[in-house]
Amino acid sequence: MPKKNIIILGSTGSIGTQTVEVIAKHPQLFKVIGLAANSRLDLLARQIREFSPRMVCLGDDPAGAGVLGPLKKTFRIVHGPEGLKQLASLAGPAMVVNALVGSAGLEPTLAAIQAGHDVALANKETLVAGGSLVMQAVKKHQVRLLPIDSEHVALHQCLDGRDPATVKNLILTASGGPFRNHSLKQLQLVKARHALNHPTWSMGRKVTIDSATLMNKGLEMMEAHYLFGIPPEKIKVVVHPESIIHSMAEFNDGSIIAQLSTPDMRLPIQYALTYPQRLPSLVKDCRLDELGKLTFHKPDRTTFKCLDLAYLALKRGGIIPAVMNAANEIAVQAFLEERISFLQIPELISRVMKRHQAAGIRSVSDVILADHSARRLAEELLKSYPGK
Amino acid sequence: MPKKNIIILGSTGSIGTQTVEVIAKHPQLFKVIGLAANSRLDLLARQIREFSPRMVCLGDDPAGAGVLGPLKKTFRIVHGPEGLKQLASLAGPAMVVNALVGSAGLEPTLAAIQAGHDVALANKETLVAGGSLVMQAVKKHQVRLLPIDSEHVALHQCLDGRDPATVKNLILTASGGPFRNHSLKQLQLVKARHALNHPTWSMGRKVTIDSATLMNKGLEMMEAHYLFGIPPEKIKVVVHPESIIHSMAEFNDGSIIAQLSTPDMRLPIQYALTYPQRLPSLVKDCRLDELGKLTFHKPDRTTFKCLDLAYLALKRGGIIPAVMNAANEIAVQAFLEERISFLQIPELISRVMKRHQAAGIRSVSDVILADHSARRLAEELLKSYPGK
Repeated sequence: MPKKNIIILGSTGSIGTQTVEVIAKHPQLFKVIGLAANSRLDLLARQIREFSPRMVCLGDDPAGAGVLGPLKKTFRIVHGPEGLKQLASLAGPAMVVNALVGSAGLEPTLAAIQAGHDVALANKETLVAGGSLVMQAVKKHQVRLLPIDSEHVALHQCLDGRDPATVKNLILTASGGPFRNHSLKQLQLVKARHALNHPTWSMGRKVTIDSATLMNKGLEMMEAHYLFGIPPEKIKVVVHPESIIHSMAEFNDGSIIAQLSTPDMRLPIQYALTYPQRLPSLVKDCRLDELGKLTFHKPDRTTFKCLDLAYLALKRGGIIPAVMNAANEIAVQAFLEERISFLQIPELISRVMKRHQAAGIRSVSDVILADHSARRLAEELLKSYPGK
Repeated sequence: MPKKNIIILGSTGSIGTQTVEVIAKHPQLFKVIGLAANSRLDLLARQIREFSPRMVCLGDDPAGAGVLGPLKKTFRIVHGPEGLKQLASLAGPAMVVNALVGSAGLEPTLAAIQAGHDVALANKETLVAGGSLVMQAVKKHQVRLLPIDSEHVALHQCLDGRDPATVKNLILTASGGPFRNHSLKQLQLVKARHALNHPTWSMGRKVTIDSATLMNKGLEMMEAHYLFGIPPEKIKVVVHPESIIHSMAEFNDGSIIAQLSTPDMRLPIQYALTYPQRLPSLVKDCRLDELGKLTFHKPDRTTFKCLDLAYLALKRGGIIPAVMNAANEIAVQAFLEERISFLQIPELISRVMKRHQAAGIRSVSDVILADHSARRLAEELLKSYPGK
């Protein structure tokens, strides 16, 4: 069997480096032909030495290429958003692993699909902002779009080969984040550093804050809606702090199929890379008799308002999910910089959403315009916050 | 779509009556053409009135037919073990639901398969005693054999459509039975009535005692071995008192697929009757956020010795599983009659197993001879017990 060509967008981030680990575990299966990174360029240089890719994409900063200077130049260097699209549509059969952070992931995803590449998608904003465009493109170009976050890989396994008409509900599990037992009063005082010490998963900073606000689960609800064609009212959320059950599908007979494992992103990454094959992985076996118990409770939607904002955004439709997502990116960044408090994250997002109409999406430029408009408005509104 | 013809063996027992409920819920799908019962003949009479079967099998007691006297005789009456075989091989396409208790279920199962009927099997002794014969017959006659106990229906769902080569382990969950936290000393004093008050499932008396001794899980381990072709060392048992996860399949990548539901036998029964279709059922939705937690621990195999006896029996092979099963039936009956204590159940079974050689099985008569030999020996050994 020929090796599968892999293009990794965001190769030096949390998902990117774990993707590299999975690929290194199965060298007989994969050949890395493209890498893109915007930071940790020393690590990128090591990845280039290890894999000898055909093309490398760097950020817009021209100094970036300097770091790679000593490397033998057997690869082409491209830059910035245009470079990402070039890399994602590199000629020949390939799978693009999109591990970019934020709405920057949308256009490279579309470029990959249009080039006929399968996509393994860690960038959930791609589907949140441009879900209908992306799913139309997947259908048109007959490529495979596989999620690589743990919840959707779980759902993919629970649904695989089953009749979608028999699905009663999808049940997303949420760790609940580091603040799940906090009162509103306690939440007034939390700082980014408290959230960044997340108990269960090793994740990037943006995702960690999204996990603490439950926006992450809202984004995943939207992603599940587009990936599996299930309406939002049939997508439920249950808090499960141990993060052992990664999500579930409930069927019309009352039966629930769940996927469990030790929480380790290398498992969903490998699933996406090797599907429909299933191979030994780097992940530790999950022993329920050693864990002892799994717990569950309802999410506190009154305290953690981002989840309901996501349902509202999908209900309003059109550009509103893209607006919500962009406002969330600005709000999270402002929280990380201690410009706003934790509880002001949903407040800011809600204000931005309220000031947008749910215009329809005809093309990617509609999504990008909505994204920019939401960011501008969020930055504008931020000026009125006193800072922390 | 034409209705599916159903023949129910053991229609007035726990599984039989729940099968009737499932069929009554979907009258457009099923037509009951045969019923067999050995007790509760008043209930059988009501079932006959409801379904107008073509054939009815009663026990050997000639008085039985008297109860049915007033009924309009549009059906044929047969009797005893030969009658069961006739009923199970009734002409025309049909599914046979085998809800008989004990090793009496083997021959009717084989008769049904040889007649080309699909079989929904609640009688686990069929596979325990005659697993290789039954699976050979299934292959030869190209029929479908579906389990209808909750664990194997769970495994069927977890494995359905997946590559068997990727299965690392099957994990059977066990409620642990009513005595799961008892010490050896406490177990010396328990009586049948303590066991018959089982916390979670509504089951027959024999199954309830088997659940208390963990022999039930041993029998299910054997059944899983034959049904799914997985070697016994890859079939694990974990105690899960809430009985919400009904069993799991662990794959080579470390992923576990589990099936969950409210514990209600009507769900696995319906699954078997309607497979590969899945339809709304009578079963209450399972709400993990309301349950709050699921717990797990290792089975206490030192105290509950029947589980290891089952692994030993399958390892020795040949007729030994049939011997073990027959000795267990005698031992459980003796315990129900208070002739032996709870801890003497595994002791008696072990003594019977030790006094049999692992002769191979060439035909059903080898199984029946082993069964009879084990019963005779068990009854003989029982005489030396003082009674309780």
